[in-house]
Amino acid sequence: MRIDPAAYVRQTIRNVPDWPKPGVTFRDITPVLQDPRSFRVLIDLFVYRYMGQKLDLIAGVDARGFIVGSVLAYELNLGFVPVRKQGKLPFKTVAEEYSLEYGNATVEMHMDSVRPGQRVLLIDDLIATGGTLMAATRLLQRLGANVIEAAAIIDLPELGGSQTIEATGLPVYTVCSFNESDR
Amino acid sequence: MRIDPAAYVRQTIRNVPDWPKPGVTFRDITPVLQDPRSFRVLIDLFVYRYMGQKLDLIAGVDARGFIVGSVLAYELNLGFVPVRKQGKLPFKTVAEEYSLEYGNATVEMHMDSVRPGQRVLLIDDLIATGGTLMAATRLLQRLGANVIEAAAIIDLPELGGSQTIEATGLPVYTVCSFNESDR
Repeated sequence: MRIDPAAYVRQTIRNVPDWPKPGVTFRDITPVLQDPRSFRVLIDLFVYRYMGQKLDLIAGVDARGFIVGSVLAYELNLGFVPVRKQGKLPFKTVAEEYSLEYGNATVEMHMDSVRPGQRVLLIDDLIATGGTLMAATRLLQRLGANVIEAAAIIDLPELGGSQTIEATGLPVYTVCSFNESDR
Repeated sequence: MRIDPAAYVRQTIRNVPDWPKPGVTFRDITPVLQDPRSFRVLIDLFVYRYMGQKLDLIAGVDARGFIVGSVLAYELNLGFVPVRKQGKLPFKTVAEEYSLEYGNATVEMHMDSVRPGQRVLLIDDLIATGGTLMAATRLLQRLGANVIEAAAIIDLPELGGSQTIEATGLPVYTVCSFNESDR
């Protein structure tokens, strides 16, 4: 029996009700990472998508975006650069602020983490409102990067993030999607 | 010319003076990750060390430990489990506290992240006082894991962490080491 890779990943994701707050179902990827087979299937979905794309760099978002992003960089013989939460990077940084439900958050990158014109894939674990990925894209563009696509494991289309990102002209790729009512 | 892999990694690490506080030199691995060649050399040092070791699982410490840990898991066909800072994991967790210079910190793992008897490699980017890796080891052992080794890219031997860990009987592997006076 041949498995459908994306469906296999999706069914291995754990639904955690009422986390991080009542009424919200969190989609937990740790069971996917923990099982060697689903982890391999997950990574290979990205590897096969991007192996022909002439990328220069993978930018992964702190912290779950580091997991798929770093493996993908290694497999495609590319460099990996972290997009981090504020105050984590030791060298000269550039920063972009974005809105959360309550208040703001900031992402940072090292000023020398991208060379102008480099073709960069931006990756995180999940797209909700898209705020983090939009801020990371602005950062990368300020550094002169040519951002090719924003990728994630999970899309939550009801929160509108993937649509918002695509509306800026940046393509989006996700392995699977969940609506709040999905179990 | 054949390069010495560990020396190549070490010379690619950036020294950032007075970070995170005056008088301390931070050893910044981002230049190693960013360059495809040094990133590959770095990962392969771990791959070759562990490919014959019959491991079951890689446990990586939040957040820089996710980078090497996840690639290593993929390359060795193993699962990857995150050791996270408090409040980041959505499912039932076990926690261990440890001391920092001022106050305490807590690391958590999912209760079902390890099966009893699994042979686990624990990995982080750097060993300073060893507090994080010691707490993570206690967590893994509470879950029934057989922790095989604690690994990191960088050892700061003057801070005593690698010695403290080895004194508990757990072997330690690091790619390179720095004393505070090293430039």
